[in-house]
Amino acid sequence: MPDAENQRVVLARRPVGEPQESDFRTERGPVATPGPGQALVRTIWLSLDPYMRGRMSDAPSYVPPVLIDGVMTGGTVGEVMESRADGLKPGDLVEGRTGWQAYAAVDAAELRRLEPGPLPLSTALGVLGMPGMTAYCGLLNIGQPKPGETVVVAAASGPVGSMVGQIAKLRGARAVGIAGGEEKCAFVRSIGFDDCIDHRGPDLAARLKQACPKGIDVYFENVGGAVWDAVFPLLNPFARIPVCGLISQYNQTAPAPGPDRQAGLMRAVLTKRLTIRGFIVWDFASQQADFLNDATAWVESGQVKYREDIVDGLERAPAAFIGMLHGKNFGKLLVRVGPDAAA
Amino acid sequence: MPDAENQRVVLARRPVGEPQESDFRTERGPVATPGPGQALVRTIWLSLDPYMRGRMSDAPSYVPPVLIDGVMTGGTVGEVMESRADGLKPGDLVEGRTGWQAYAAVDAAELRRLEPGPLPLSTALGVLGMPGMTAYCGLLNIGQPKPGETVVVAAASGPVGSMVGQIAKLRGARAVGIAGGEEKCAFVRSIGFDDCIDHRGPDLAARLKQACPKGIDVYFENVGGAVWDAVFPLLNPFARIPVCGLISQYNQTAPAPGPDRQAGLMRAVLTKRLTIRGFIVWDFASQQADFLNDATAWVESGQVKYREDIVDGLERAPAAFIGMLHGKNFGKLLVRVGPDAAA
Repeated sequence: MPDAENQRVVLARRPVGEPQESDFRTERGPVATPGPGQALVRTIWLSLDPYMRGRMSDAPSYVPPVLIDGVMTGGTVGEVMESRADGLKPGDLVEGRTGWQAYAAVDAAELRRLEPGPLPLSTALGVLGMPGMTAYCGLLNIGQPKPGETVVVAAASGPVGSMVGQIAKLRGARAVGIAGGEEKCAFVRSIGFDDCIDHRGPDLAARLKQACPKGIDVYFENVGGAVWDAVFPLLNPFARIPVCGLISQYNQTAPAPGPDRQAGLMRAVLTKRLTIRGFIVWDFASQQADFLNDATAWVESGQVKYREDIVDGLERAPAAFIGMLHGKNFGKLLVRVGPDAAA
Repeated sequence: MPDAENQRVVLARRPVGEPQESDFRTERGPVATPGPGQALVRTIWLSLDPYMRGRMSDAPSYVPPVLIDGVMTGGTVGEVMESRADGLKPGDLVEGRTGWQAYAAVDAAELRRLEPGPLPLSTALGVLGMPGMTAYCGLLNIGQPKPGETVVVAAASGPVGSMVGQIAKLRGARAVGIAGGEEKCAFVRSIGFDDCIDHRGPDLAARLKQACPKGIDVYFENVGGAVWDAVFPLLNPFARIPVCGLISQYNQTAPAPGPDRQAGLMRAVLTKRLTIRGFIVWDFASQQADFLNDATAWVESGQVKYREDIVDGLERAPAAFIGMLHGKNFGKLLVRVGPDAAA
């Protein structure tokens, strides 16, 4: 790619509290040359996801953080431009984790070739990608909703939450969403949730209780904070709480003031026999084929619906990411980094 | 039983904080007459267990509390004196939940007939009873220790803790106990634990860390409080935490001062993918036969050892129970209510 130029967004410094655009830096430079076993991928879509806030911090986590001056990590869909790997050729479409950049040379083993199908390419990053699989694996393995039970999920118009509620419905459960604003709530109801609560209104706890007259059997935790506080007293005996995110906590810099409610949480675990289990999607990597089969069928048949929120241009990724941490996106947040592949 | 008199211990009032002997009242009265389908049981052994503190309180729990002026609830082993039930006859030995009293008329369905065997009758309340089964079911179903992993349990000289560590060893794991005082720790080591920490000494956290050089994979939670605080930072990714008791919390009357560590706990659940699950033994009632087969074989072969702490006379049960909440017992706490059955 002698004529092309790479564009990439690197981590300029670790944010304290809320990330600022100045924590990122957009750079231009040469396009990498693929080594043996590698392919050069041109990014078409970049996925922006809450977990990236954790990668900006060097607090202990399940993976190392992004290095200062390192390219921000991120899932992408792209087109193979050059290949020095068996099984990949120019023009192939691939999903990978090539980060916030226009081009990347990566090991072929880290790429998943996408078969052409009737659904848009971008779905490989949302309803048919990591967020959809997070919902699928967390809900079915840990949440285990049964017919007639009540499943609650926040960020319900987002790619994980919307999938959680729709799978809960397919399993015969009652699905109650929580979202920010009436427009999002209307969308959540339109895709089949039994109810959706606007967390911006007053007295969330009372309205959630009204929406869950039989209590809560599964709470899919992706936000924490005030939503968790509203959910907690409504948990039924034997409730299951898959924990895949705590987006409301990611920008916190100091512990909350007292009283210390940790012991009260453990007491509820005991008296209600709760199951609280943290996970990330790759803990269930062996279920990816099952997920893709099921989710593709559900989306193609219209049983599962999805919504995307598209931002044009890699340089707009930092602002879009910061907005997402405030709930400004409406649906799966994607950055269009480059044009679709020529058909 | 026209000549006999019943003796029973009732709940005089609900304790606030630490129970006092004056919260109990010992009464005498007539022996009940069994109705159809019932048997009259003479108590030989009464089991005293930490869960009883919960029954004295009317805070929400998994079972209703003991009523004021009601007989204290408790597991017993006794002898059938009269029977109006099929399958039970005078002289049969039974295990049941007939409470803190010398005689009880109860439905035969609530009694389990004990087969005569080489082990003492009292074991049906300890290593072969509810405490042993609590350890067995919680550890194997939730803890799931694997060879080479580290299992930590407090109250390790007690009937649950000692069984947890010994089963962990049988499964090839490293077992580290926590107990109060060097005499108890020596006992815990003598039954095969790899190490035992005296929680009364200074800097529990540092000594526990030293005893767990590869971190903690399973923490069997039965105490909470300072032990949990020492365990928490040592938990490994994917650690499992069966929660069957929080004895250090039972007498607490006010929430602890801040900061609020609840969010930090949930963050660790997420970043370490912890599993925290509350249970009571009867959630696994269907595994009782497996437990009895395994545990009986282990005890008879000497692979599992146990220790009993025996108090003579029902009138001494309140003081013994209060002492247990302070860790004064050394081994399974039992009250000898009446003589053994004539052989």
